[in-house]
Amino acid sequence: MSKKWVYLFDEVEQAEKDVGGGWENVRGLLGGKGANLLEMVRIGVPVPPGFTVSTEACNAYLDSGETFPEGLKEQILEALKNVEESTGKKFGDKKNPLLISCRSGGKFSMPGMMDTVLNIGLNDETAAGLLKLTGDERFLYDSYRRLVQMFGSVVMGAPDDDFEEVITKARLKAGVETDTQLTADDWKDVTKKFKAIFRHYAKRDFPTDPYEQLNLATEAVFKSWNGKRAVDYRNAAGIPHDLGTAVSIQTMVFGNMGNDSATGVALTRNGTNGENRIEGDYLTNAQGEDVVAGIRLTDEISKLKTEMPAAYKEFEQFSKMLEKHYRDMQDVEFTIEKGKFWMLQTRDGKRTAQAAVRIAIEMVEEGLISREEAVLRVSPEQVDLFLHPQFDQEAIKAAKASGDMLATGINVSPGAAFGVIALDADLAEKWANEEGKDVIMVRPETKPDDVHGMLASQGILTCRGGRTSHAALVARQFGKPAVVGVSDLEINMSEREIRVKGRVFAEGEWVSIDGTEGILYAGKLDTMVPDIKDPYLMELLTWADEFRRLGVWANADYPVDAERALEYGAEGIGLCRTEHMFFETDRMPHVQQMIMTDSPTERREALDALLPFQREDFIGLFRVMDKKSVIIRLIDPPLNEFLPLQVDLIQELADLKFRLRDAGTLEDTNRLLDQIEEKRQILKRVESLHESNPMLGLRGVRLAIHIPELTAMQVRAVIEAACIVTKEGVEAHPEIMIPLTSHVNELKSQRDVLEVVAKKVIEEQGIDVHYKLGTMIELPRAALIADQIAEYAEFFSFGTNDLTQTVFGISRDDAESSFLIEYMEKGILTENPFAVLDREGVGELMRIGVQKGRSVRPDLECGICGEHAGNPESIQICHELELSYVSCAPFQIPLARLAAAHAALRDKNK
Amino acid sequence: MSKKWVYLFDEVEQAEKDVGGGWENVRGLLGGKGANLLEMVRIGVPVPPGFTVSTEACNAYLDSGETFPEGLKEQILEALKNVEESTGKKFGDKKNPLLISCRSGGKFSMPGMMDTVLNIGLNDETAAGLLKLTGDERFLYDSYRRLVQMFGSVVMGAPDDDFEEVITKARLKAGVETDTQLTADDWKDVTKKFKAIFRHYAKRDFPTDPYEQLNLATEAVFKSWNGKRAVDYRNAAGIPHDLGTAVSIQTMVFGNMGNDSATGVALTRNGTNGENRIEGDYLTNAQGEDVVAGIRLTDEISKLKTEMPAAYKEFEQFSKMLEKHYRDMQDVEFTIEKGKFWMLQTRDGKRTAQAAVRIAIEMVEEGLISREEAVLRVSPEQVDLFLHPQFDQEAIKAAKASGDMLATGINVSPGAAFGVIALDADLAEKWANEEGKDVIMVRPETKPDDVHGMLASQGILTCRGGRTSHAALVARQFGKPAVVGVSDLEINMSEREIRVKGRVFAEGEWVSIDGTEGILYAGKLDTMVPDIKDPYLMELLTWADEFRRLGVWANADYPVDAERALEYGAEGIGLCRTEHMFFETDRMPHVQQMIMTDSPTERREALDALLPFQREDFIGLFRVMDKKSVIIRLIDPPLNEFLPLQVDLIQELADLKFRLRDAGTLEDTNRLLDQIEEKRQILKRVESLHESNPMLGLRGVRLAIHIPELTAMQVRAVIEAACIVTKEGVEAHPEIMIPLTSHVNELKSQRDVLEVVAKKVIEEQGIDVHYKLGTMIELPRAALIADQIAEYAEFFSFGTNDLTQTVFGISRDDAESSFLIEYMEKGILTENPFAVLDREGVGELMRIGVQKGRSVRPDLECGICGEHAGNPESIQICHELELSYVSCAPFQIPLARLAAAHAALRDKNK
Repeated sequence: MSKKWVYLFDEVEQAEKDVGGGWENVRGLLGGKGANLLEMVRIGVPVPPGFTVSTEACNAYLDSGETFPEGLKEQILEALKNVEESTGKKFGDKKNPLLISCRSGGKFSMPGMMDTVLNIGLNDETAAGLLKLTGDERFLYDSYRRLVQMFGSVVMGAPDDDFEEVITKARLKAGVETDTQLTADDWKDVTKKFKAIFRHYAKRDFPTDPYEQLNLATEAVFKSWNGKRAVDYRNAAGIPHDLGTAVSIQTMVFGNMGNDSATGVALTRNGTNGENRIEGDYLTNAQGEDVVAGIRLTDEISKLKTEMPAAYKEFEQFSKMLEKHYRDMQDVEFTIEKGKFWMLQTRDGKRTAQAAVRIAIEMVEEGLISREEAVLRVSPEQVDLFLHPQFDQEAIKAAKASGDMLATGINVSPGAAFGVIALDADLAEKWANEEGKDVIMVRPETKPDDVHGMLASQGILTCRGGRTSHAALVARQFGKPAVVGVSDLEINMSEREIRVKGRVFAEGEWVSIDGTEGILYAGKLDTMVPDIKDPYLMELLTWADEFRRLGVWANADYPVDAERALEYGAEGIGLCRTEHMFFETDRMPHVQQMIMTDSPTERREALDALLPFQREDFIGLFRVMDKKSVIIRLIDPPLNEFLPLQVDLIQELADLKFRLRDAGTLEDTNRLLDQIEEKRQILKRVESLHESNPMLGLRGVRLAIHIPELTAMQVRAVIEAACIVTKEGVEAHPEIMIPLTSHVNELKSQRDVLEVVAKKVIEEQGIDVHYKLGTMIELPRAALIADQIAEYAEFFSFGTNDLTQTVFGISRDDAESSFLIEYMEKGILTENPFAVLDREGVGELMRIGVQKGRSVRPDLECGICGEHAGNPESIQICHELELSYVSCAPFQIPLARLAAAHAALRDKNK
Repeated sequence: MSKKWVYLFDEVEQAEKDVGGGWENVRGLLGGKGANLLEMVRIGVPVPPGFTVSTEACNAYLDSGETFPEGLKEQILEALKNVEESTGKKFGDKKNPLLISCRSGGKFSMPGMMDTVLNIGLNDETAAGLLKLTGDERFLYDSYRRLVQMFGSVVMGAPDDDFEEVITKARLKAGVETDTQLTADDWKDVTKKFKAIFRHYAKRDFPTDPYEQLNLATEAVFKSWNGKRAVDYRNAAGIPHDLGTAVSIQTMVFGNMGNDSATGVALTRNGTNGENRIEGDYLTNAQGEDVVAGIRLTDEISKLKTEMPAAYKEFEQFSKMLEKHYRDMQDVEFTIEKGKFWMLQTRDGKRTAQAAVRIAIEMVEEGLISREEAVLRVSPEQVDLFLHPQFDQEAIKAAKASGDMLATGINVSPGAAFGVIALDADLAEKWANEEGKDVIMVRPETKPDDVHGMLASQGILTCRGGRTSHAALVARQFGKPAVVGVSDLEINMSEREIRVKGRVFAEGEWVSIDGTEGILYAGKLDTMVPDIKDPYLMELLTWADEFRRLGVWANADYPVDAERALEYGAEGIGLCRTEHMFFETDRMPHVQQMIMTDSPTERREALDALLPFQREDFIGLFRVMDKKSVIIRLIDPPLNEFLPLQVDLIQELADLKFRLRDAGTLEDTNRLLDQIEEKRQILKRVESLHESNPMLGLRGVRLAIHIPELTAMQVRAVIEAACIVTKEGVEAHPEIMIPLTSHVNELKSQRDVLEVVAKKVIEEQGIDVHYKLGTMIELPRAALIADQIAEYAEFFSFGTNDLTQTVFGISRDDAESSFLIEYMEKGILTENPFAVLDREGVGELMRIGVQKGRSVRPDLECGICGEHAGNPESIQICHELELSYVSCAPFQIPLARLAAAHAALRDKNK
């Protein structure tokens, strides 16, 4: 007996048995679409009868040099008979012919990448029979020409353009503008001409034998698995090439058989806001394509309730049934043929971030899913999008309706952006930076030379390229929304204009792009910023908090940041960068004085002047973060960051000397000479502080050891502030953090300074303040000797930005806009290690650090304050490393809370 | 019964028993000096009778608040009786008084750091008795005044200056210039005045009771263990503070009891060239001090043979006995008292590197020691010194004789140097760099501002500071000979002169310093460069080769380097830096063209032009290194290293624009405009290549991935060269090394290029060449993922310079002259990690790298090519890590061969 290749829609149990159970396995065997069809039949949803040819059949076909495996043809015929029986129609019958569709569908969705043939079974004879049954000649010849066209292009490889040209000529001849206005006779003529095209390319007549049609279509679907587009897609999406596609063969039903027929698409809940109400569009007496194509004005689904109450009731009932079965909101297609309701397809529905959250919450309330599932249903990225500007849904709807939704491409960098078209980088930069315009930079593809323009733009749009194209990588790098690979987009540089499906936009005209969905719109779409206080989101995050083990803290330098962080759910401050306070305008003169002077007295004066500023900053932070930890990192950047650039000074000096020659009066001359002398002094200091690699230079704890008064001043400010707020009844938990430690003695020496100052302040103030001393682990050596460091440090904070730099030996500033992009383009790196924590290198060092640190101090608080703390994949690694918390930017906190919960739940479900 | 605190010199077996055996333990109990005295007695060398009070007694005394432990006083008296019996003299006896010395001596030598009192037992009465016995009144009162002086200063803390003042006045009064010219009566008077000083400071009379003298002296020696100088010394030398000192109490013998008496010092072999012949000096009828002080002209030891043949024979016999017993060349002190020979002290003798080598070799030939021991007897540093310039021994002797050996200080950075005195850094730099003078920079101490002067100087000399002073650290850093802490040196800046023990040298006069020994000489001493081909050294290194497990390879870029390396014993080339070839004048234009152009064609032309140069270089290397491995590293530095500096270009542009205004003729103007344009172009390129941290930038394999043609050219040059020399009969073993790998894909992509090119060249040439592909492990990530890397790399070479930079996050260029020095001054780091491999951080990463690499490829060749490969401590670590070889600079190869042997022997002897 030959292997079972074909499964009738009611054979789901058999399929489960054959694969040893499991939804994943069934999907593997029958493809997502096929498996869903069998599943619907199982639960009693009316589906037009049919069967699915397995992916194994496809693989066998492809492996054997494109021949049907043994028994396949027979099993298809057998299954077809079964369908004939249940429909009462007969394939190829002249009176009551059965028409079928033949659709591809692999385990993973590959939208539009493989082929479909509809209306199989039509030929002149069956068409005549069908005409008698329906009396609708126009419908019939429209269907017929579609079969010929699909067959021609899909099965025989005839170019679509040839077919389209015939239709265009037909419209011209008839003097009409749209296809719907063509009459039955027009379509009859078109069908004839299509057959001629078919003959031209296939070197044979259009096959009139329905069985031959079916076989050829099945083969075409099999072959489409290895079509270039499909292979490219799988490469891009990381889908294995050996899965194969299934072929679902299903009875055609028609929603255009009169006013008791209809067809529509719907989401079982609102995909925009998540409200629990069916949302959709339908057309009476129409075909599915008409709804999707937007050729006719569709009705809202609610109208169906009054128009066909019985059918609507069925629809509602089956929708709920599907939701209950799949435990998720569904995206369904249905057809009502002469009053009879058929569900054609179901799949999990797409939704906005807002809808995802609300649906998850409400499904828990409805008892459909558990809280854990609800938390897992929403991705951290969605929560992130929740808090970013998006196009207003009404604006999108209007754009669709008015045809301003121009084209789709690859959604490589999320977010919504609008701007005027700029066709080169220089212009983009000029318009954006000099004229303050919002710009969308539009290029065939981008190159390293374009980066300055990309940075100045609001968004990036290209004709070519994919997920790892230069444009995609740079856009993600810098958080610019981008849509690439928009094949419908043409750029005409000589006319300085773009053309999309016939519409022309001059450079300077407005367009909008949705990088989340990969859509290009004409004009300037309204955007909206959603609210963190959305009650559904708040609820979901509260649930997430119950599951997660990682703490979520915030990086915040100012009280206002801390307030925002608290609002978003921060449990502490993991990083307050004290040097940010140094960069403020009113403090810079003191900072510069401290750097410029060689006199200890002047240096102390400068530091004394800075003390009150720092103290005020800390007082504010402690007040906001009452009862919560506040990690204060002592000054980190090299001193020369507070002085002008060497090259600028040299240029300025040259200019001054130039001007000196033109100085008219003695007064001018003297003034210029004074300025020159002053610049010379600064230049001298800048040169003495010059380092060839400042990232590896005199910064962090090295600076503090070089100028011990700095640590003393900062510690004094922290402890004084803590004492002051304690008197107000605030509970301050300062944790003083030493940056850039590489040797235990650095920490030891800082501890000595700290203890002396802290003790003194505590005595002066008469207040007992508890504080912790800890360190950044941001150099490989610190991780490697973490056991020694833990003898002195009460907490660790992994600085993964610096750690990534030294582990890879890559300077972030230099590399992210140059060779790192090249590395990703060339596939050397799959991810930017500054965006996604490098598990093998940096992660391994972190593992060593945590393990060694806790070997000495088992309760060691270990956190991360690098930018990875706001990246879900990296948060997963932090969870696995059993860090105590992640500390990210305030706006990333919701994302981090959810990602941490996901990591914990994945652990639990392992 | 109380503990045994006191050991007679003949109680060595008892001492061994009490400590459970072991020379180290006996030294711990009795101090080095005491243990040697007991040891000499054991083997039958005549030693003046005496006993040693143990270190335990010292510790008990100090621990109990400075009281003698129970039984100590009694045991001392008991031992003293024993001495009286064996000498026939009696302590405090008026007729035949016993005089004794009381000397400190801990487990580790601390020269001059603790106290000694001689001539104990003298008072007016015993002096009178002794006068009768000797008839030498001058000797007697000289001895007496010495006792009062030592007792006064050591025991009672009277200032030395007061005593010296008395002697000075006595000289003035007597109208003589030196102490030796003072008469018995003068000394008698001095003794009287010394007693008055004693009374003034001690508030009591000088103790006439010999037993009180002994007790007070013993206590003084105990206390000197905790004297400031001793504590400082131990801190500097890393000697524990809880060891305590022993006190050796010994009968005084006198070489000044007539012409049948003599005293001298000797080395049992020549300490300069190692010849097996006693070398020394002695004086008839004199005291030991006179020999050392050089007040009287000493005789060569050979003369003693004729003068006192019997005593000389004894001396020779006992010297050989000691050599045989200690199995090393000895430095001895002896006295002949009325024809009776006494050995007073023995210790291992100091020797030059040359002598160390020859003595070790000859002792093996004599059957005294094994080859292993011989190899261990010579330190790698000595072998290194062997190959560095040293002062000529004759010149040193002459300087000593003429009093030009001015002063000693701390020997902080080895080597010999001479130059004119410069008293500030700016002048040092000016004289050295502008006038080409050899300069010795002389400062009270140095500061960071002095570094430029230190770098320009031949050597550094300071009055203050120790081993970790700024001067010491910088000098070692840059290999400048230095002597610091010369307390006899005064600097008079207003007169611009220095003063040493009364002699005055103006700035600009010549001095010489020996940084190996810590000596300052007047004038310009001759130097000599020893020869690698010294047969003793060659022999020793051959033996070392038998023991070592590590291979010793060389870093060599040119054939001439390779030849030198071979001569020194290199077994392969571990690093040929191909970019060095790029920096040659005739190649730079092509290199710059390659960098400046955007055109692939021009780039290829430039590379084609470079190919023959590279090929020739490799041909030369392969010819020299016939049958040996040659590791060729592909280009490493960032491209901007081949272009001018940005700041220089800006300055030049400013200058050109300035000159443009003065341009007289149109021709001049046009010429200047052309130059400006050219500079602008270069500046533009330099700016586009500018990186804020080039060390972490586009270099190494990143460059090769950015410009794949570079790898292709270099590989072609290597393989073509290998084919060409193969045709000549040479056996080439090229190993191509990829620098700066951090991700396995980098290596993979390079391998792809390499294989294609190599295959092509091998086909073109029709020669089968075997080559290996490997990589530097010089980034933390490479070590962490070494298992993945080993899938592609056939060998690893640890680049510990870069690895140290990234593990510590320290840029070597910036740090070594700035905060690293400060770190060592402040004790944060004890060693410069760029000089001595950081065992805990870098070493740990290397361990991970080797272990992971060999887990995949068990026979993986792992080497090191960083500068640590020439440092003995680091070579020890490489041995422990089981590296295959170390690759160092050619001149370091002998050192490395020996250090590798030491490591292996330490392993074996563990």
